[in-house]
This record gives sequence, structure tokens and C-alpha cells, in this order.
Amino acid sequence: MHATLSGDVVRAGERARERFYDSSGYGHPVDGGSLELAPVEAAHLLYRGDLDAVEGPDGTAMDFRAFLSSAAVSEIAFLVYKDLRDRGFYLSPARADWSDSPAVRSAVDDPAVDFVVYPRGSGPWDDEVAHRVGVVSEREAVRAGDLGDLVLAVVDEESALTYLATEHRAVSGTSEADLPEGVSGELLSDRLLLWDPPAAIYDQGFYGQPLDDRDGDVIQLSLLEAAFLAREGVLDVEGGPEAVVERGRAVEGERFDRRLRVYERLRERGLVPKTGYKFGADFRTYADVESVDDLGHSELLIRVLDREHTFSPRDLALDVRLAHGVRKEMVFALVDGEDPSEDDSDGIEWLSVTRLTP
Amino acid sequence: MHATLSGDVVRAGERARERFYDSSGYGHPVDGGSLELAPVEAAHLLYRGDLDAVEGPDGTAMDFRAFLSSAAVSEIAFLVYKDLRDRGFYLSPARADWSDSPAVRSAVDDPAVDFVVYPRGSGPWDDEVAHRVGVVSEREAVRAGDLGDLVLAVVDEESALTYLATEHRAVSGTSEADLPEGVSGELLSDRLLLWDPPAAIYDQGFYGQPLDDRDGDVIQLSLLEAAFLAREGVLDVEGGPEAVVERGRAVEGERFDRRLRVYERLRERGLVPKTGYKFGADFRTYADVESVDDLGHSELLIRVLDREHTFSPRDLALDVRLAHGVRKEMVFALVDGEDPSEDDSDGIEWLSVTRLTP
Repeated sequence: MHATLSGDVVRAGERARERFYDSSGYGHPVDGGSLELAPVEAAHLLYRGDLDAVEGPDGTAMDFRAFLSSAAVSEIAFLVYKDLRDRGFYLSPARADWSDSPAVRSAVDDPAVDFVVYPRGSGPWDDEVAHRVGVVSEREAVRAGDLGDLVLAVVDEESALTYLATEHRAVSGTSEADLPEGVSGELLSDRLLLWDPPAAIYDQGFYGQPLDDRDGDVIQLSLLEAAFLAREGVLDVEGGPEAVVERGRAVEGERFDRRLRVYERLRERGLVPKTGYKFGADFRTYADVESVDDLGHSELLIRVLDREHTFSPRDLALDVRLAHGVRKEMVFALVDGEDPSEDDSDGIEWLSVTRLTP
Repeated sequence: MHATLSGDVVRAGERARERFYDSSGYGHPVDGGSLELAPVEAAHLLYRGDLDAVEGPDGTAMDFRAFLSSAAVSEIAFLVYKDLRDRGFYLSPARADWSDSPAVRSAVDDPAVDFVVYPRGSGPWDDEVAHRVGVVSEREAVRAGDLGDLVLAVVDEESALTYLATEHRAVSGTSEADLPEGVSGELLSDRLLLWDPPAAIYDQGFYGQPLDDRDGDVIQLSLLEAAFLAREGVLDVEGGPEAVVERGRAVEGERFDRRLRVYERLRERGLVPKTGYKFGADFRTYADVESVDDLGHSELLIRVLDREHTFSPRDLALDVRLAHGVRKEMVFALVDGEDPSEDDSDGIEWLSVTRLTP
């Protein structure tokens, strides 16, 4: 069977259309009955032995080895294409003008997408998309803004693949506590002490940490908790909420403001954020706290990032793996740099990343 | 009982010596029968109610609350001191001139050490040290060079404690493979393909990854594996080992050289390093590989760092937690910046960090 590379397309004849498109979903049919293949599709057909060679622009015939070593095809795209085929999927390279399907055309309208994967049993002739896949090498930086409704296929340095599903999501819970106002607190260098706290602060609100297990004990608040409670009027502290915020900035710089915005949003939405330090995250959250005596499992791990953040796939893999290991979901809170009061929305994007086995 | 703060010492009388030192190991006795306490020890005695007040330099009497809020005592040092006391340990602040014990004097001869903890049942009158403890807040950067033979007591923003034991260790294994020379390989942009490899490369050496499960299949080598095998003469590649190293530098900069040095040392010591990408590390290692068909569990996770690296306790916690979750030990390979050939040793320090429950 004759196939010819021309620019970024491999052209094959009518028999190719029947054999490769109609029966297996490779390429896209063009007027006149022939078939156009993306180089990665042609590489896979060469690899399977369904094509013997692709003729280059200079007339030389390239076998699989020569074609994969050529500049026509990306080795990591090939590895991902092959893996998804091995798993029984049909998939197409992201080329909007190769499809009449509205679902496909809308799915590929994003430069981060390399492949559209059809639901198992479906193909390019159906109007349905299971996954939008972006291919990256372990060493490439990935922009946080490119993620969401995208499966990252990460190829590590030893050519093994990991799929990470990225989705925007909402966060919400039912935690609330009825707290008194004007509780007096004393600011230390990196925390705040309530020497004589009402029980509800810790018992219902799950704010702070008792210094000891004794009844009526001193409660230690983190600076985030203290700043939030001072703004809410619950906490009365010398210098007011601003004194707490100033202290927070002194110990961790502008990160404190970003984290406080996320803390406030989580509390407003009925989640209780507690430190995620032991998991390397900013927060772990509890969705439905009624009392600390009856505390469930915390569901989310939250890492606060600037919306301009770029991820290293390795760090992403670490976070997602750890979250999975402790039966929590990893959620990145992407905060934009602008002043939140200028913004109608709360300026936070919640991005969930989970391991996917397609 | 009367106690007076003077500089960084709290002085108490003869009864204090009997009650606090002789029976519970607080402070150190001085000539004339009285007792000197570190402020953190005095804070703990105030907290327990064993002291009512400490008199400040200006004559005011400070109770626990006033003393803890004063500049005399660090709140995080107090939290760690209290926690170790709660766990039943006697411990002393790191002051060389407060002890006659050679073990203690040598243990505290290091600015990173804040407390020496005695073995359970022992105290300052014995000549034995269980742990050297350094106290840090979650937000403090920790120099890699300060670690080793040190327990880091990390206080998170909600005042909870984590203990991380840091130790220098040796790494060694028994893996070896008898490989042919002159195997031909083809360099792609971020890996190297062996189109017709001898079986021993993968089967005994556990180098690379087959492209597929088919017998006699193509093997993909990572650039690190390829650089090592090219230097060993096993691999024959256009441009020689330098071409592979150049490619490695092109894709990840000088980190490639650091990682290659660690890779080489691990191989030389009989360990098989494979990518640790899925665990967010540089390598996972197998100590005793005879054949890939009989591969055990990988024992170590290795992260390669410059010796000048400073850790954030949060990142350390994340690495250690993940390693523990997958039953591996986290080891940092600290590589110094100098040219290794200038160095008699191999210029790599292996630093193990594990979670400790004292």
C-alpha cells in the first residue's frame, strides 16, 4: 500500500480508507475516496506492520524505524497514541478541520489538546468525545491555566505513561458554628492564644488546637484562623484584624494573603480547612463538621497557587499520588493576582487532579 | 518558690534543685546548691504549676501566660519541650557548659541542636544521649548541610508536631550484569532506542523499558541509562557518550549532570536506579536485581539535590510521607558543586529522612 508524507499529512489511497478508517478509525477520509493520516497514525500503522513504508518528500521509503527517528513524528506522541490504542480506544489527532462532529470540533478547539479519545466502542464517525488528551514529557512545564477538562498524558524519562485527569470543580460543605463575639486573644510571634475560650470555638467550629487535653484549656489559633475570626468579629485582638494579617505577612510574605483568601472562601462555603502540612499541602478540608467529637475523614487536600503557576509534572504526580494514598482528592486553588474586591467572582479556580486509568 | 530571670537564665534556690533537678531533670545545679534553668524549662514548670511566677529583671512577677508571651521564651521551643516531656523524656537545652557528660557536650556542639533528649529512664546525670533535636517552624528553611544525626521537630502552623529523623547512611546492593560491548543505539530527542538489543540489557541489567511485550522487542533507554552504558562501552552511539550527555543537558540543563553522577554511583554500588517519577523522586532503587522476572520491591526513593539546598519542612514532610506510604525509605543524594574528579570521595552525601515517633 502506498503512503506519502507531505507536510504534516500522510496521504494514502482508497484501499487505505477502507482498511484503516472504516474498520479502525485511523485518519480522515477526503474527497475522491482517499485517506489522510496524521504522522503519528501512520507511525502506528507502520509499527503494526499494516503499512510497510511511508514515502518521504524526497522519494525515500521510510520504515517504522526511519519514520520514528525522523522529524515528522514526535516520539512521545507516538508512545501515548500506541498506549491508548493498546487499551482499545480509537482516537484522533486534534485537527478541527478533520471532523464534521460538533463534539470533536469543540473538543479540539484548544492548543493544549493533542488527541481526542472516543468512548470505547465509538469512533470518529460518532459525535462523542470521552477524553481530551494533552501529551507532555515529564520535564515540560505545564501551565495551570491550560488545565481543566483535560487529561494530561505524561511520558516519563523511561517512557512509562501516567494519565492525570484535570477538572474544574465546585467546593461546598455544610459546616457551620454559632460563635460568640468579642473573644479575647493574644498574638504571639506565629500563632494566637485564647486563654479563656468559649467551648464552641474548638468544639463546634473546629478552630485551633488545644494546648493540652485538659478541659477549658488554652486554644492555639493559627494566624489564618485568627485573621478570619478577627474579621468576622468573633475574635478581639489588639490592633484588630490588620495586626494579625500584618503578622502573617511578616512570617510568610504575600503567600499569606493568597492563603487567607482561600481559607475564607472555604469557610464561607461550609468547609473546615485545617493545615495540610503533614501531606505537604496548604489545607485538608472537612465538609460536614458538627462537632470535633464526631469528626469524619477529611476529603480534600488543597494547595494554594497563583493562577500563573506552571506545574512540573513530577510535582503534580507527587501530590496526586500522596492524596490518593490517603484517600483524599487533590485540589489546587488557583488564585488570581488581582485585588479580589475588584472581582465579581471570588477569583479562585478549583482544579481537581486525579490519577486516571483509561 | 522564688525564681528570677536574668539574661537567658532563670535562677532558683536550693529547694528547686532538689525538686526539679534531682527528681525530674530540669536545669543544672550550680555551685552553692542553687539551680539554673533555661527559660523554656521555667516555662514548663510554670505551665505545670510547679512554679507560680518568675520574677523579671524589672521586678514584675510573670505567670505562665506572661512568661510565654514575653521575649524570654520561644513558643515553638516550648511546644516541643512540652511534647517530649509529655512523652516521658527528660531533656536539656543545648548548652555545652551545663553538662559534665562527654556524650552531652559532644552532642550539643552544633548550632542546629536545640535540645538533647536522654534515653527513656535516663537523665542529665547519665552520660547518654538518645536524640539531638533541632526545633523549626513549618515555614523555616532548613539547610541540607545541617541535617544528619539530628531529629527535626517541626511545629506546623496549627501547633502540631512532627519529628523527622535525619541520618547519613551508606547505600549498597548486589546487582550486577554481564553485558556485551558495542550494542548499537539510536538517539532520539529524549531517549535512545536499541532496535536489536541483547536480552541481558533488560533481562539481567534492568536497563530500559521494552516498547512492547513482544519478544526481542525494541528497548527504550532513558538518557541517563544511555549515558552510563555509553561510558561503560556497552553502548555504541553516534557521537559517543558525549552526544548523549549533550542531549541530556539540552533537555534538563545542569541537573542532568548531577543526576548522572548519582546514577553512576548507585550502579557502581550495586543498586539499580529506575525513574522515581511516579513518586515525585529522581529514582527508586532495587538493591538485588538478578533478573527482571524476579524483581523485588524497590527499597529507596532518591531525590538528587545540590548540597547547598535548603529544604522547606513542608516539602520534606511530603516526601517522607509518600515514601512511608509506599514502604520505601526517602534518601536525599546531596551532590556538591565541585568537579567530582577533583574530589577523592565521590562527592555525594546520602541523607536518609524518616518519620519518628519518639
